Amino acid sequence: MTAITDQTVAAPVSHPTLTAGAPLPRAGAGVGDGDAAGLGVTAGSDVAGSDVAGSDAASRTSDPAFVLHEGGKIGIGLTVPLRDRDDLSLAYTPGVARVCTAIAREPELADDYTWRSNTVAVVTDGTAVLGLGDIGPAAALPVMEGKAALFKQFGGVDAVPICLDCTGIDEIVETVVRLAPAFGGINLEDISAPRCFAIERMLADRLDIPVFHDDQHGTAVVALAALRGAARLTGRELGDLRAVVSGAGAAGVAVTRILLAAGIGDIAVADSRGLLSIGRDGMSPVKAALAAETNRAGISGGIEAAMAGADVFLGLSAGAVPEPVVATMAPEAIIFAMANPDPEIEPGIAHRYASVVATGRSDYPNQINNVLAFPGIFRGAFDVRARHVTENMKLAAADALAEVIADELTPDHIIPSVFDERVGPAVAAAVARAARADGVARR
Amino acid sequence: MTAITDQTVAAPVSHPTLTAGAPLPRAGAGVGDGDAAGLGVTAGSDVAGSDVAGSDAASRTSDPAFVLHEGGKIGIGLTVPLRDRDDLSLAYTPGVARVCTAIAREPELADDYTWRSNTVAVVTDGTAVLGLGDIGPAAALPVMEGKAALFKQFGGVDAVPICLDCTGIDEIVETVVRLAPAFGGINLEDISAPRCFAIERMLADRLDIPVFHDDQHGTAVVALAALRGAARLTGRELGDLRAVVSGAGAAGVAVTRILLAAGIGDIAVADSRGLLSIGRDGMSPVKAALAAETNRAGISGGIEAAMAGADVFLGLSAGAVPEPVVATMAPEAIIFAMANPDPEIEPGIAHRYASVVATGRSDYPNQINNVLAFPGIFRGAFDVRARHVTENMKLAAADALAEVIADELTPDHIIPSVFDERVGPAVAAAVARAARADGVARR
Repeated sequence: MTAITDQTVAAPVSHPTLTAGAPLPRAGAGVGDGDAAGLGVTAGSDVAGSDVAGSDAASRTSDPAFVLHEGGKIGIGLTVPLRDRDDLSLAYTPGVARVCTAIAREPELADDYTWRSNTVAVVTDGTAVLGLGDIGPAAALPVMEGKAALFKQFGGVDAVPICLDCTGIDEIVETVVRLAPAFGGINLEDISAPRCFAIERMLADRLDIPVFHDDQHGTAVVALAALRGAARLTGRELGDLRAVVSGAGAAGVAVTRILLAAGIGDIAVADSRGLLSIGRDGMSPVKAALAAETNRAGISGGIEAAMAGADVFLGLSAGAVPEPVVATMAPEAIIFAMANPDPEIEPGIAHRYASVVATGRSDYPNQINNVLAFPGIFRGAFDVRARHVTENMKLAAADALAEVIADELTPDHIIPSVFDERVGPAVAAAVARAARADGVARR
Repeated sequence: MTAITDQTVAAPVSHPTLTAGAPLPRAGAGVGDGDAAGLGVTAGSDVAGSDVAGSDAASRTSDPAFVLHEGGKIGIGLTVPLRDRDDLSLAYTPGVARVCTAIAREPELADDYTWRSNTVAVVTDGTAVLGLGDIGPAAALPVMEGKAALFKQFGGVDAVPICLDCTGIDEIVETVVRLAPAFGGINLEDISAPRCFAIERMLADRLDIPVFHDDQHGTAVVALAALRGAARLTGRELGDLRAVVSGAGAAGVAVTRILLAAGIGDIAVADSRGLLSIGRDGMSPVKAALAAETNRAGISGGIEAAMAGADVFLGLSAGAVPEPVVATMAPEAIIFAMANPDPEIEPGIAHRYASVVATGRSDYPNQINNVLAFPGIFRGAFDVRARHVTENMKLAAADALAEVIADELTPDHIIPSVFDERVGPAVAAAVARAARADGVARR
């Protein structure tokens, strides 16, 4: 990773002057893609009024989001000078031929002498974009550019949007494997469940670089960190807590799995048909596997059956939970209602029954935002040239994230702000250490 | 295309201080990949001593090319601010959702509101890299990064290196089609002949964005421009000239085709087996087609048979031409010996028989360098959002390039310097005009 030289400003087409910082009425964060196989409708099509916004040129000209997006949000910059023939002879022929030849002879040198070891492909097929659903690869590009901008800003990671015009599992896997030589990592993004599970597993098997599905594991890391903060604040251990997860899509499955790995007391998972339990009808293989590891009490029926007496509610879907059901939770309940833009439990209601409330929205305290995780996770993985992202690396990321504000906990501050400059370095260092401990670090 | 903000410099890993401008003993440019099916060995494996360079860490530390390449030559930069929650709410959720929704409804809006319309994928399979041959996709990455740097520096074009781990024609085509939604153009690079011909044609058929194989058409455009300069300088029309092309690989075929389109008097093409002529054995379909349009005199045998009395020699292979053969050329001959690093005819010898001599090397006058063409061609195509690169756009690029120095011609100055700042804008404007005239411009 390198500084961009002033060579980059010699651009024939200029970007419009940016009107920075005009606040918008709605806010939220991109956690979770809901449950394509189950609850389905994550957040509906009216995210931020998007069903009408930008439908004509005039509305786009007056909308600061469109004005800001003109020409895109990222660009390529040079990190070396190209002022004269001498520069050219080093950066291009003939000098480059020596570097190519060395890499041909010793392939890992590509990590030293190209941008690869700091560069992640942000790969989507556009099937589960934010709460908008299957809007296709081109319409997903603004989100992927945003992700790339966040990668750079918060992790110093170079990220390239790759929006694939195919949706088959094998097609996506094969395509990503083919383009992997120029990248140091793969960040899967906004690919709908249950395909995302197989795609991530197959790519991790075939590639020798970090593969990470942010909608699963980014969300899981941040949710676990926030839960650690909430538990610590309310004087409990994770092992003492019984939780309910609403949603068995990408995020719901991953959050459940990381909580199990972190030693949660018990956890029940609900999809649109009700609680997952052994032998229940209509479960995918992923859900059947989850049923075997969760819901120890064997509760069947709707989510309300598990909510009674539960310590923690984790909302990763669009399914609203009625207030009478919320009222049955245990004292000092912890409610993370993460659906965007409309939390499963309205925060005003949640506060009547819970000691700690978090959402996915930036306009409430305690925002569960993936941005707290993925830049630092890739930064740490890249710093030690990790071959994979292990479970321990994710757990370490969550622990480090929680630790950043361990001495500052309040009910409205159980997770750091995305602008807390301690976050990225702390997560990166913990991830790097875990990679070394797990033997997946190359250096 | 946009300016990179200072957000980009917050990088946790610093680039080493660059030792800019240390001259190297050898020089050259990346024209042509020779003839994988014919002459084969383009320039050998000893480009710039690359058979020994960089074989140990000490030699890399002391080689300014390796020092410069540490961490790579390009990076991602932000073109929008991400300073606070308000910025985030515009560049990411919830603001981005409005942009995504608008694109989903009206797909061409992706050209306005993403980086796509200024971004080209530089795609290689690593089979014909510089003169190094089939060194594979990872070893090709430094060249692709160099290309991306040149795209930005000389055309303001954002270019992303894509190094594919597959070599089948259908595999490459399918992969590029799948990743096309995030790109505004495809620049094929260092893919060996004859596969490159089919790949370019199939991609141009399937995609609605410019597809350009630089090793073919970049070389062809610059060679034609230089030949226009040489002809003008020596008081002749292109139609009066009889030329010999040595090499029927990617560059040889494309140079021949553009000279035919520009109205060259006659042209004979030689591969490693001798001159292409109708009915000759061992010709690929591409060569057979070329044979039908060239060599009007029906000369058979080796290249020396066509060299006798020829006005122009265009070397696009590694095949050396003996001085006695050079001596048989017509008076006021024009010799472009473009193989790197060793021209087919050593310039000292060429000057004994020719009025104008050009090479691919930067340490001699009249360097035939693709950098004069591809940045301006994509700049022009992007400026009008061209759907394709037409033959007229290539011819217009060559004419514009020749025109830049039409009033400055000398035997040592028949083509502009790559650092001539008039080149990019002149080529871009001509290409944009031709795209409009051909009806392939979207605006």
